[in-house]
Amino acid sequence: MESRNNHEPLILTKREFLQGFASVSGISAVMAALEAWDMGIASAATAPPALSGRADGTRVLVLGAGIAGLTTAYELTERGYDCRILEARPFAGGRCQTARAGFRLDEVGGQSQVCDFDEGQWFNTAAWRIPAHHKSLFHYCRRFGIPMQTLISSNESTYLRYENIEGPLAGRRLRRREVMMDMRGHTSELLAKLAQQGALDAEFTGDDKEQLIEYLVAEGYLDPNDLVYKGTTERGWAVDFAGPLEPGQPSEALALKELLQSGLGNTFSAVSSFERPYTMLQPVGGMDRTAAAFEERVGHLITYHAEVQELRQDEQEVQVHYRDSLTGDTATATGDYCVTTIPLAVMRNIPNDLSDRCKAAIGAATPSRVGKLALQMNRRFWEEDDAIFGGSSQTDTPGSSVIYPSHGFLGPKGVVQGYYVFGDTAESVGAMEHGQRTERGLANGEKLHPGQFRRHYDGRALSVDWKRVPHSLGGWESWSDEARREHFPVLLEPQGRVYFAGAYLSYLTGWQAGAVESAWYQVERLHANAAAV
Amino acid sequence: MESRNNHEPLILTKREFLQGFASVSGISAVMAALEAWDMGIASAATAPPALSGRADGTRVLVLGAGIAGLTTAYELTERGYDCRILEARPFAGGRCQTARAGFRLDEVGGQSQVCDFDEGQWFNTAAWRIPAHHKSLFHYCRRFGIPMQTLISSNESTYLRYENIEGPLAGRRLRRREVMMDMRGHTSELLAKLAQQGALDAEFTGDDKEQLIEYLVAEGYLDPNDLVYKGTTERGWAVDFAGPLEPGQPSEALALKELLQSGLGNTFSAVSSFERPYTMLQPVGGMDRTAAAFEERVGHLITYHAEVQELRQDEQEVQVHYRDSLTGDTATATGDYCVTTIPLAVMRNIPNDLSDRCKAAIGAATPSRVGKLALQMNRRFWEEDDAIFGGSSQTDTPGSSVIYPSHGFLGPKGVVQGYYVFGDTAESVGAMEHGQRTERGLANGEKLHPGQFRRHYDGRALSVDWKRVPHSLGGWESWSDEARREHFPVLLEPQGRVYFAGAYLSYLTGWQAGAVESAWYQVERLHANAAAV
Repeated sequence: MESRNNHEPLILTKREFLQGFASVSGISAVMAALEAWDMGIASAATAPPALSGRADGTRVLVLGAGIAGLTTAYELTERGYDCRILEARPFAGGRCQTARAGFRLDEVGGQSQVCDFDEGQWFNTAAWRIPAHHKSLFHYCRRFGIPMQTLISSNESTYLRYENIEGPLAGRRLRRREVMMDMRGHTSELLAKLAQQGALDAEFTGDDKEQLIEYLVAEGYLDPNDLVYKGTTERGWAVDFAGPLEPGQPSEALALKELLQSGLGNTFSAVSSFERPYTMLQPVGGMDRTAAAFEERVGHLITYHAEVQELRQDEQEVQVHYRDSLTGDTATATGDYCVTTIPLAVMRNIPNDLSDRCKAAIGAATPSRVGKLALQMNRRFWEEDDAIFGGSSQTDTPGSSVIYPSHGFLGPKGVVQGYYVFGDTAESVGAMEHGQRTERGLANGEKLHPGQFRRHYDGRALSVDWKRVPHSLGGWESWSDEARREHFPVLLEPQGRVYFAGAYLSYLTGWQAGAVESAWYQVERLHANAAAV
Repeated sequence: MESRNNHEPLILTKREFLQGFASVSGISAVMAALEAWDMGIASAATAPPALSGRADGTRVLVLGAGIAGLTTAYELTERGYDCRILEARPFAGGRCQTARAGFRLDEVGGQSQVCDFDEGQWFNTAAWRIPAHHKSLFHYCRRFGIPMQTLISSNESTYLRYENIEGPLAGRRLRRREVMMDMRGHTSELLAKLAQQGALDAEFTGDDKEQLIEYLVAEGYLDPNDLVYKGTTERGWAVDFAGPLEPGQPSEALALKELLQSGLGNTFSAVSSFERPYTMLQPVGGMDRTAAAFEERVGHLITYHAEVQELRQDEQEVQVHYRDSLTGDTATATGDYCVTTIPLAVMRNIPNDLSDRCKAAIGAATPSRVGKLALQMNRRFWEEDDAIFGGSSQTDTPGSSVIYPSHGFLGPKGVVQGYYVFGDTAESVGAMEHGQRTERGLANGEKLHPGQFRRHYDGRALSVDWKRVPHSLGGWESWSDEARREHFPVLLEPQGRVYFAGAYLSYLTGWQAGAVESAWYQVERLHANAAAV
């Protein structure tokens, strides 16, 4: 089951994995797994390493102009290093990218699209939200003065419509708010009544019991007289008021047994995800504004269209052979050191003379299978009709989230995300042609917004299957617990004159802040070695 | 107790009133009260009334250039009416106002302030957030193309620090997320165990029981083996990771008994408030951008500095005597009709020849006592250090919310709201001099951000006590249940050639959308009468 955790439009749930794991290994093993896994955790890193001394003129070849490569070049240049960046794409940012009109998206296998959104419309094809605790990335947002705005990750007003569930709620469109409220209301009632009947008297004394009941009354909007949950206007209104003489009608609660049958209560949890809370951040105007700000500062160091063909080193230097994808010409760049931020899935196909142990590590990370669909709508019906601003609705079709934009509110048009697919679903959707992918998104969206979704789609769509995107070959890279233990430390160490960096080399796998922090880590090490030379 | 409902920095809680009410009168009476009260409810109004015919040249005097007056003039002008607006202030918008450098704030009683914030810093002194379901106001935001952004009303990452509570949590600063998670985790455990022990067997059969337990495990992050809540990383981390080799440490749950003792669980409820959900909207650049957009269109109809002295009418027309507050000159404006949007608290002091019944109605609404303090900070420490972006923290001092801005994220400075006081608290704080008010806010903020709040305050503050603001004399106006039944209908009817409009004449008392909808209601009636002439 996808996206169980606080209606996150996300990934296979790690929590379910961990719960299964706990049932065999106990909770301490879960904690160990959490530590080792790429769970979203807080980072203490807030600033680049304070390096003493300079290494003026030391040549560093940086492979890849994504966030890790840009950070590396920016920090080293500040210390007098002579950096050069080779980037296979025609732009900087890597998976920190935003599609606008004219954006070209090629896929391995030959499918090509050119974005034809209206002016002012955009879509973040990969990285799209920044948690509040990703201080390392914010370091640059602040330093570069990038205007930021809210990204509404979850929104209680969005819809659930599950078809393959038991009972009368099957196929019925509900607001998440209704399900959350009614589940918590009903279960508060159950516990409050049991407490009052004395079921907890062995554990709770008079005061505790009173306080518990008082909490449950507040939590669940129970009638304090009989401790019954009778619904509340907080779950929404059945009939909106119409003018000052028609006051509207509160809605009625869903029955607990119907809710339990449906399993819909299991789509949320006690709090929003720490990793992906209700609100996150995004740069105003598209995620690539961050990359653009780096590019302003280190763009002159970048050679674009440079596809790395071979990575070699000797005692003196590193040689990188690359091919200009526009002209077909090949050339060699050299450096005293090299920092490669090339995704491991790409790196494993590049001939090199790294150690076998290192090659094994490169082969051990798992590139994520992930896909997105963007659909331009000619009216923001979800805002105008449904009062939904940001967040995501979903059906129980795998990867069925419809994600609403958190920008351009009340504007004339908008780009919604039509699906967010992972794993096997991404595999099968990725195998489709673009038109089929679009149709899949439209069919699903129509279930959530009947009569509106297809009608307002204005024929402009963009789909991406990250496993098929050249120079990335995956959405991000992560590790199994075992692989992280075994291989991760190998890549943290320099391989001769070659250093690795990228979000995969952090505890924030798949996040831009992970890319920044891995770059900081390696910059510090490289400088220590270069200064020692 | 203030702001109990989903850590809303708001008002005496209606819910507590209603719960008390329910204990005497039962839930159906509560529902009736909800209907009659100014609860935040959804409005079906999405567009101005479709009026047939025109009334070219019919003269309408509009009193007040707040949202109700601006809406009235805009809509009537569209139908050929000859409108004129008298506004006592030097600007349009009324309580849709934003303080920036140079903004002057006088108070009845003689206290005056001139805002001295840095350029680019602003503070909404009154209206500051728009719920997603306020479609009538959005009608104009859309029509006028006003850029909108998110207003984060509630944020689980913000702090609670209560001193006057029982037990070891007294005086301890906690994230709301921790309290919410632990309360729901522990209570899920209690109910899951009771269910497993058979306490609900009379009500729930095998499948229901299994599903209930499954839900509670998901909701509360229980260990599925023993149904115990052992904490979860979703509540936050005790030690953040530091680089790729130091994975950090999950935090430990607070004990249920300590939480119950503290009563902190009662600061939130099952879902965010329907009226004030986690995320709301605001115009980019300040709430007054809406007023400014109206002003662009009907500003030429406004006479500023025009303080209404007297309102008279005869068979033919309405005469309004007013005084220019700059020159002291008096003058008379006339119209075939008059729409007064003057707050009732002000209106009751203006000589007029309205009926006694109407005067009684004017006297029956209650102006809210409400105050705010804005403090400019020279560093956004709550973002940089605490990873808090928007929402509010609070102590248990009444009116103690510190509200963080939802704009200008990661910028060099920011304006935080230092308190939000209501009722008796607003009364006593309003009686203070500005410097004392500022000190009150600083002392409270320092509890929430020790070592930071005072240190980063850069000496620029603005405080407002709405009961003392001329031309408003209150934050908004609302009705007791009884007063609404008795007096509200009187004001909905035209009094001769005089019509009333304002948020107080709607079910959205205190909201801009209420002002819009009451204007729409009266525009339709006025037009029906004017066309019939």
